[in-house]
Amino acid sequence: MPIKRIAVLTTGGDAPGMNAAIRSVVRCAINQKVEVMGVSRGWWGLINEELKLFNHRSVSGIINQGGTVLKTARCPEFTTEEGRERAFQTIKKHSIDGLIVIGGNGSFTAAHIFYQKYKVPVIGIPASIDNDINGIDLTFGADTAVNTALAAIDNIRDTATSMERIFVVEVMGRDSGYIALAVALGGGCEGVIIPERKFDLQVMCHDIVNGNLKGKVSWIIVVAEGAAKAEDIARKIHEITTLETRAVTLGHIQRGGRPTAFSRDIALKLGHAAVEQILQGKADLAVGLCCGKVISVDFATAIEKKNLEVDSWYKLIKILT
Amino acid sequence: MPIKRIAVLTTGGDAPGMNAAIRSVVRCAINQKVEVMGVSRGWWGLINEELKLFNHRSVSGIINQGGTVLKTARCPEFTTEEGRERAFQTIKKHSIDGLIVIGGNGSFTAAHIFYQKYKVPVIGIPASIDNDINGIDLTFGADTAVNTALAAIDNIRDTATSMERIFVVEVMGRDSGYIALAVALGGGCEGVIIPERKFDLQVMCHDIVNGNLKGKVSWIIVVAEGAAKAEDIARKIHEITTLETRAVTLGHIQRGGRPTAFSRDIALKLGHAAVEQILQGKADLAVGLCCGKVISVDFATAIEKKNLEVDSWYKLIKILT
Amino acid sequence: MPIKRIAVLTTGGDAPGMNAAIRSVVRCAINQKVEVMGVSRGWWGLINEELKLFNHRSVSGIINQGGTVLKTARCPEFTTEEGRERAFQTIKKHSIDGLIVIGGNGSFTAAHIFYQKYKVPVIGIPASIDNDINGIDLTFGADTAVNTALAAIDNIRDTATSMERIFVVEVMGRDSGYIALAVALGGGCEGVIIPERKFDLQVMCHDIVNGNLKGKVSWIIVVAEGAAKAEDIARKIHEITTLETRAVTLGHIQRGGRPTAFSRDIALKLGHAAVEQILQGKADLAVGLCCGKVISVDFATAIEKKNLEVDSWYKLIKILT
Amino acid sequence: MPIKRIAVLTTGGDAPGMNAAIRSVVRCAINQKVEVMGVSRGWWGLINEELKLFNHRSVSGIINQGGTVLKTARCPEFTTEEGRERAFQTIKKHSIDGLIVIGGNGSFTAAHIFYQKYKVPVIGIPASIDNDINGIDLTFGADTAVNTALAAIDNIRDTATSMERIFVVEVMGRDSGYIALAVALGGGCEGVIIPERKFDLQVMCHDIVNGNLKGKVSWIIVVAEGAAKAEDIARKIHEITTLETRAVTLGHIQRGGRPTAFSRDIALKLGHAAVEQILQGKADLAVGLCCGKVISVDFATAIEKKNLEVDSWYKLIKILT
Repeated sequence: MPIKRIAVLTTGGDAPGMNAAIRSVVRCAINQKVEVMGVSRGWWGLINEELKLFNHRSVSGIINQGGTVLKTARCPEFTTEEGRERAFQTIKKHSIDGLIVIGGNGSFTAAHIFYQKYKVPVIGIPASIDNDINGIDLTFGADTAVNTALAAIDNIRDTATSMERIFVVEVMGRDSGYIALAVALGGGCEGVIIPERKFDLQVMCHDIVNGNLKGKVSWIIVVAEGAAKAEDIARKIHEITTLETRAVTLGHIQRGGRPTAFSRDIALKLGHAAVEQILQGKADLAVGLCCGKVISVDFATAIEKKNLEVDSWYKLIKILT
Repeated sequence: MPIKRIAVLTTGGDAPGMNAAIRSVVRCAINQKVEVMGVSRGWWGLINEELKLFNHRSVSGIINQGGTVLKTARCPEFTTEEGRERAFQTIKKHSIDGLIVIGGNGSFTAAHIFYQKYKVPVIGIPASIDNDINGIDLTFGADTAVNTALAAIDNIRDTATSMERIFVVEVMGRDSGYIALAVALGGGCEGVIIPERKFDLQVMCHDIVNGNLKGKVSWIIVVAEGAAKAEDIARKIHEITTLETRAVTLGHIQRGGRPTAFSRDIALKLGHAAVEQILQGKADLAVGLCCGKVISVDFATAIEKKNLEVDSWYKLIKILT
Repeated sequence: MPIKRIAVLTTGGDAPGMNAAIRSVVRCAINQKVEVMGVSRGWWGLINEELKLFNHRSVSGIINQGGTVLKTARCPEFTTEEGRERAFQTIKKHSIDGLIVIGGNGSFTAAHIFYQKYKVPVIGIPASIDNDINGIDLTFGADTAVNTALAAIDNIRDTATSMERIFVVEVMGRDSGYIALAVALGGGCEGVIIPERKFDLQVMCHDIVNGNLKGKVSWIIVVAEGAAKAEDIARKIHEITTLETRAVTLGHIQRGGRPTAFSRDIALKLGHAAVEQILQGKADLAVGLCCGKVISVDFATAIEKKNLEVDSWYKLIKILT
Repeated sequence: MPIKRIAVLTTGGDAPGMNAAIRSVVRCAINQKVEVMGVSRGWWGLINEELKLFNHRSVSGIINQGGTVLKTARCPEFTTEEGRERAFQTIKKHSIDGLIVIGGNGSFTAAHIFYQKYKVPVIGIPASIDNDINGIDLTFGADTAVNTALAAIDNIRDTATSMERIFVVEVMGRDSGYIALAVALGGGCEGVIIPERKFDLQVMCHDIVNGNLKGKVSWIIVVAEGAAKAEDIARKIHEITTLETRAVTLGHIQRGGRPTAFSRDIALKLGHAAVEQILQGKADLAVGLCCGKVISVDFATAIEKKNLEVDSWYKLIKILT
């Protein structure tokens, strides 16, 4: 059965580049004479029939905007059979032949379950800022998030150096140390605490005290939110070393903002790839970049735990500080 | 007695533009055939004789750098008579005829006390990010801090809109609502909580619930750190409205970073003015911009509580959201 | 006759903050129970009846966007009596009681002529990036334009220093040296060429060669577009000094972009002030900031040649380099 | 013979990340108990014996700075046998066992010739902003240059949309369309002219006029400097279409500035890799990233013409606009 109409939605936390991906999906589909419906608020919009036909102009002027014009929302109802059934009814009612889901890990799990039951072709475009999709190099939000966090670290470095203080900076990453490692390396930070790696605070404090004796007076320790709270680490460092220590939690500033060139580039290429895949009859998989090339990964693989090469990264951070 | 040699130091929290001010002081003094010594770590450097002669090149390449190359530090010892006596000995020993202090409120209070006793000509250059110096329009750090906080708010807006959530964002300002008001206005924020103004959370929550019924689904409330904790406000809003609410505390990212054009402009002009004042035999006062012109304000006046026109600002914020 | 409905338009070159001004005009008017029509493409839209009623939502999400959602255009027809007559017919037809014009010098001249004939209350909001409106401190676009140009200069400084070259950088400013002076000062530039001041290239080249002998190997000369072409100056410097010299013309990158906090602040306050003025029965004048306060200036005064304090600025630039 | 001392230099045009690469080379070498000398102004410094021993602190605070603290210069003398002989004498005199050259295409050609004759181990780190090194994915300067150009395009888009004009924007790239393609895609630009692809202005003008009739009123055409001059293209478009067209040449702003996270990441990893390679006795090759992994490429291969996948990129740009 030829694909005549698809729908696109964004789910999970918003990520910079989502709008570029939407633009790419819409225009690539229209270019192939396929109609596109934009669904509001992720799965919720499918369940509640909040969707409308998009045209070429619907996605004008959004390529450089953070967030998502389709909005995104949590949708506990979609974890129930009844919710998925209602979503399927909307799909049938609007003669939708395929679905493109822009989202992260949790979104692909949900999409996979949905596909297993209803066999509606679903293609995923990985959009997390945490870079936690297995089998691909980089999710498109990650580059922007890392640059935003790095700009914050650069600012904090000015104060750390001027006031000769220790700063503990908490970045996003519930299960993944990706952002933390990237900014610790790029920011010339002196330490990094991530979920993937055991960490010994006593050793770090020992290093700080030793460094201090040799004249090293400012430190920035990066913490992934999934590994520890910046406040806790800062308090403990102060207790052990008696040195003045401050905590900063970057929080939601890492999620929004103008997408970087790289975030846009990935988002646009994957939007195109997703449309191509769905037109070729593929389903139940995510597209992604690997070694600069577009590849596809089964949802079942994509949602597995991604392995970062933590050790080489960590080692380089230690050598460089 | 003609001024042949002056010293310059930075104290209190670092502020973007301090390096531009140092550059201006050094080069303007040298241009007038006056020698300049750079003192490290504020008053501490005077007490501990950490200072050295600067030349034209000593301040190359720093005009666009955040922080302060002279470093800054707290110095409890300078609050004691003994500490001030030691600082004075350094000044005598190095034949320093005048002192330029780049700092905030507390720095000027200390400088004022020091001048009362030792009669060493001291001129202050206001450098706070809080814009809390009385009698002048704007401290030079404030413009950069506000722009940094505003960029963060713009990012958060992307997520607030996409996920339809309430965000409570805490900005700097222990005694002053300046940053909070400026970013609430410029960021199109829906509420602002500042030390200068009573605030009724029940009324705000009532507005939020009402707005929600009419379809307004995202809110950003800005809180000055001196008025409340973002975490507390967010928790209470959630308790009262049951709506999802997130807290973000911008913290030290507001202190560093490349100074804006305006921060540099003020810093450079005031560096020049401070040197002019000291050469004209003035003392015990701060220079500042008022209505685009350089003026001077007695330390005694400068350290009084600054009056912001809170009400007109607040009213405009309410009209515009 | 009470004002029940006003129209707002943007004319002349776009400037960052125009959208913030539109938002402020629309929401402040609605807050006063006055209807607002948005006119497309400046005077052209009045003549061609391209306008529509705006509501509170019409100006959502634009506060941090460069450009103007109302668009702007040149309109030679409005310089003719017939064109103005047609514009007036549109105003009558749509029962428009007053007009708010967001624009620059030329826009106010046209508005003044229009008012003289038709007595439709017109209030101007100064929006130029050149800061060329007489009687007020700063047009709202100027702060963003200066910061954009300064970021470019900071980038160029990296190369000038690394490659030890002379750069001539042309910034906007047909009749005004404002941007040039501001970035030359803030960028630590070694020379500045502006329309308001005679300039001796031989002297500058002599300084460059002398500096070169003393080891000063990188120079940035800022040129306002109205004073000279960067290409010409660069070629002549090379001819006279034989040193490698590069020209960069920043051009239109200075016009767009996210408005700074200050640009938004001015735009929002003046939008409010313009509505207040028109409701108080005022006409034929521009609102503006002077010494931090909102004032009004007759169009006849506003369009006179603005006097910059060129000499003190110029002198400081020379001292600091 | 074990490597006890190496030298590092930067040559060719400066690129953002050079300082991060220098830092990495210096600290990784010291970590391996190898001494490092920093050479000033590229080959010129070798010939003229301008070099000095670096320590851990020599590279503090430079990780986020554009340009190169080692400076860079053209050196025609190094293209002569006599020049290279003098460089070799410096290397012998200072007991330098290996050389790390951070630079582009031309630098590697020179390094290759030098190695052939003197057999001093030379390892290259690709640093061009043009991304023109064959056999690797990305040179480290390219990501920053593309983001800088993209920010400029985003600004210009504001004006193009507001004033409904055509803009022709010239970006860097003498032999490579990389930057042009990347910003044309990421900026949602309507056309791109690059050295690698024939281009038909008549067809483009035909599209513009057609688009214009359908209501598409703003266009941005990106031109790589090696393909055409923006001024020429703009003039011709105006002549053919009679539509208002503006030219902007971004020029040297693309070269400097704070390196992005990705530029720093690559630079730091390759600095480490270059030290590893030289310690393992390798020579006459460049290190680089390919598919996220560090690889090495013979200089002879690295300096060949790099093949961009121009067609797929170009096609996507056309579909998306």
